[in-house]
Amino acid sequence: MAKEVTKRSDNYSEWYDNLVVKADLAERSAVRGCMVIKPYGYAIWEKMQGILDRMFKEQGVKNAYFPLFIPKSFLSREAEHVEGFAKECAVVTHHRLMTNPNGPGVVVDPSAKLEEELVVRPTSETIIWSTYKSWIHSWRDLPVLCNQWCNVVRWEMRTRLFLRTAEFLWQEGHTAHATAEEAQKMAETMVGVYAKFARETMALPVVVGHKSPGERFAGALDTLTIEAMMQDGKALQAGTSHFLGQNFAKSFDVLYTNKEGNQEYVWATSWGVSTRLMGALIMAHGDDNGLVLPPALAPIQIVMVPIYKTQEEHDTIIAKMKDLKAVLEARGHSVEVDDRDNLRPGFKFAEWELKGVPVRLAIGPRDIESGTVEVHRRDTLEKISEPLEGLEDRLIGLLDDIQKNIYEKALAFRDASIRKVETWDEFKEEIEKGGFLLCHWDGTAETEARIQEETKATIRCIPVDSAVCMEEGKCVYSGKPSHQRVLFARSY
Amino acid sequence: MAKEVTKRSDNYSEWYDNLVVKADLAERSAVRGCMVIKPYGYAIWEKMQGILDRMFKEQGVKNAYFPLFIPKSFLSREAEHVEGFAKECAVVTHHRLMTNPNGPGVVVDPSAKLEEELVVRPTSETIIWSTYKSWIHSWRDLPVLCNQWCNVVRWEMRTRLFLRTAEFLWQEGHTAHATAEEAQKMAETMVGVYAKFARETMALPVVVGHKSPGERFAGALDTLTIEAMMQDGKALQAGTSHFLGQNFAKSFDVLYTNKEGNQEYVWATSWGVSTRLMGALIMAHGDDNGLVLPPALAPIQIVMVPIYKTQEEHDTIIAKMKDLKAVLEARGHSVEVDDRDNLRPGFKFAEWELKGVPVRLAIGPRDIESGTVEVHRRDTLEKISEPLEGLEDRLIGLLDDIQKNIYEKALAFRDASIRKVETWDEFKEEIEKGGFLLCHWDGTAETEARIQEETKATIRCIPVDSAVCMEEGKCVYSGKPSHQRVLFARSY
Repeated sequence: MAKEVTKRSDNYSEWYDNLVVKADLAERSAVRGCMVIKPYGYAIWEKMQGILDRMFKEQGVKNAYFPLFIPKSFLSREAEHVEGFAKECAVVTHHRLMTNPNGPGVVVDPSAKLEEELVVRPTSETIIWSTYKSWIHSWRDLPVLCNQWCNVVRWEMRTRLFLRTAEFLWQEGHTAHATAEEAQKMAETMVGVYAKFARETMALPVVVGHKSPGERFAGALDTLTIEAMMQDGKALQAGTSHFLGQNFAKSFDVLYTNKEGNQEYVWATSWGVSTRLMGALIMAHGDDNGLVLPPALAPIQIVMVPIYKTQEEHDTIIAKMKDLKAVLEARGHSVEVDDRDNLRPGFKFAEWELKGVPVRLAIGPRDIESGTVEVHRRDTLEKISEPLEGLEDRLIGLLDDIQKNIYEKALAFRDASIRKVETWDEFKEEIEKGGFLLCHWDGTAETEARIQEETKATIRCIPVDSAVCMEEGKCVYSGKPSHQRVLFARSY
Repeated sequence: MAKEVTKRSDNYSEWYDNLVVKADLAERSAVRGCMVIKPYGYAIWEKMQGILDRMFKEQGVKNAYFPLFIPKSFLSREAEHVEGFAKECAVVTHHRLMTNPNGPGVVVDPSAKLEEELVVRPTSETIIWSTYKSWIHSWRDLPVLCNQWCNVVRWEMRTRLFLRTAEFLWQEGHTAHATAEEAQKMAETMVGVYAKFARETMALPVVVGHKSPGERFAGALDTLTIEAMMQDGKALQAGTSHFLGQNFAKSFDVLYTNKEGNQEYVWATSWGVSTRLMGALIMAHGDDNGLVLPPALAPIQIVMVPIYKTQEEHDTIIAKMKDLKAVLEARGHSVEVDDRDNLRPGFKFAEWELKGVPVRLAIGPRDIESGTVEVHRRDTLEKISEPLEGLEDRLIGLLDDIQKNIYEKALAFRDASIRKVETWDEFKEEIEKGGFLLCHWDGTAETEARIQEETKATIRCIPVDSAVCMEEGKCVYSGKPSHQRVLFARSY
């Protein structure tokens, strides 16, 4: 078959790259580091957006839109922020092209140089806080809870589809609060929203935790993260929520008058997830046959493939399928009848497996006679014959079951990947096997840096689930006293 | 009151600018020509997006995403396109900033100059057709029907919120077809979708027609448009759909093998509407008290304002309002109870009028006694007392009625604005009064240009409704023979 993908065990990285392209999710574009998200991939992203957007709105968050461009000087207002973000970015320096006076095509018009260069937003804290200054005056104006769905650009040198691209799509929430407590609570609420979405919709059993100071967002006092485990034993940061303190309010002079009539700086959070989630989805659940999509995110949940020789057989089977499709669609499910006449059933089966469609039905002339249908589930690759009578209820039940099973499988894998490690020798040995290492750390940036240098492992998070990590012990590297275990892993 | 807006009759242009800002729709940003779309304005845009997106999908269109950046050389591939679009645009020339070696802040790193400059997309035909080349090989791959919701940038010198901004949000559909007929039909279908949306959702009675060759999109063989009439007598182009022929297929070498095995160039369309629709919505329906939103697009359809003196009165009224809100929300309507304790009812009334909320309810202690409620409709500013009993059905009926009434009012205004004009003297006199002038034109670009020079009026469209315009006559300017009337107007 033309679209075969590399096996995971042969080359996991190549398997991923193969899958993204062959399952029609995305491809590289003519512009360095930028991707084209193809309709099938975008349909999954749209489902993610729709569900997340409703969850945000339940928290009182409203969507808005802020400019694509950020004046260069804004980036240097917050000292740490500029270090983290101002470096590799797309810089707009001119606003006009002109006909090439010396040949064909167009050239930049040198007379159209901007007074101040503009940076294509790598993230929008600066432009948003410069705007909030005029929105916020009194405690009555707070909280401000805004989100935007947009594109951002970070000029990455080494890019991979969905995981790390120069341009990507995301949402970024930016909230303003009267007190530190309220802002901290907001940051926690939003990481909770992400964790719930990851678990229930993406079937991704993430670990929620705090980043170590060295891994925090540039300008944050605390960064909360959801960390997922991929099948190759590497962790993937799938979403972050930041408590920004008063750093941006101070940089952009955003003060409010409190109930007592005093002026105070406003407290901030920001939080985001991106098209990187697509990468997590693919790598967490896919197998050697292709994608395995959780039904909650599958653009097509059930596909039906007719098997026939004569036109009459074809017509009978397609009529049955269309009836079933109508019933399932009326109940809110997405169904496709694959009636392409130039492809064999076997080719279609492989294609829909590659695309991760959760349930596949095949109906042939013998099924019509016996009133049965062949039901294939993508997650386990099992095939069973089911009576057509009352099939729709069982199919809907099956979709639920697949959603749960994909999650359980990933959860078992993740839990098996978490190992307690006590000594440095053990650490060095175990890290080669991949997975999360739960071990004591002395809390210093020095130790963190040394461990990364020697093993490429970083602290993925300090889990919020204190039962897992609150314990006295000795640092796995330095042997110094430690008050809690943290999760180390190599990561994307 | 602080938020009073200029009267339309005093200064229509200032009235518009006032309204956009004071109704919290949008504001200027720190970046020249770029706007911030505030939550209330964005909520209207989201409603537009949701409805249009469903309409596109009913036509088989799928969403995708293409890069923000376009290599400079792509723009010059299609000769007419470069003339129309390559000039005023944001040009990315570098990919890195560095710490300023000579002072504070950051500067562009001269060593990070791009080999080829990138243009921030002013429209995406070029990058999309360069992508379609690898998607399209055989007639079986056609049609390709893609749309993207995204931001675009055109470096306008004189900007106005929503009407003309450097960055704006839009959707752009790009379709590829096997035959000219199919592509032409697609362009017609999509302008039909826009017209239906404008009429039924925006309550905007648009005229559908073809652009004259001089007013076509750069690179199109035919441009269809929906033209709306604003209250100041100026027309506004609210959406366009282009039949692009094989121009982009030829520029980007996109060929397919037809059923007979021969290679042919692919036929194209593109079509788009933007946040400019927000401007049309405001200007078509607003009055001196503020926005008048059609219920189909109002983020809040019904607002309830309690009138009370005692805490007990407050609690009784709010309880009633929350019951009513729950019933209306369960039936799919958006309702807000304005329980702010620091503002007088009169202030709230004015604010919700400014924001264009279609229906306002006020309930006071006497209403509770008599089982009534005061119902105010925004479109006619009428107030009536209604029994609380069975109110929800009547409110839902009222929303329908308001939607229809806003459309009828705009339709009557538009129809009254269309006048047949036969002589040049008459034309010059009538154009000063605004509106559409329906008159004969000899079909030459020269006459079109002269009329524009002398009166600032342009051909808005050649209406597709042939009953209106197919008629023999003499050109209003040159006196030469003409086969049809066209619509002239001054425009935004």
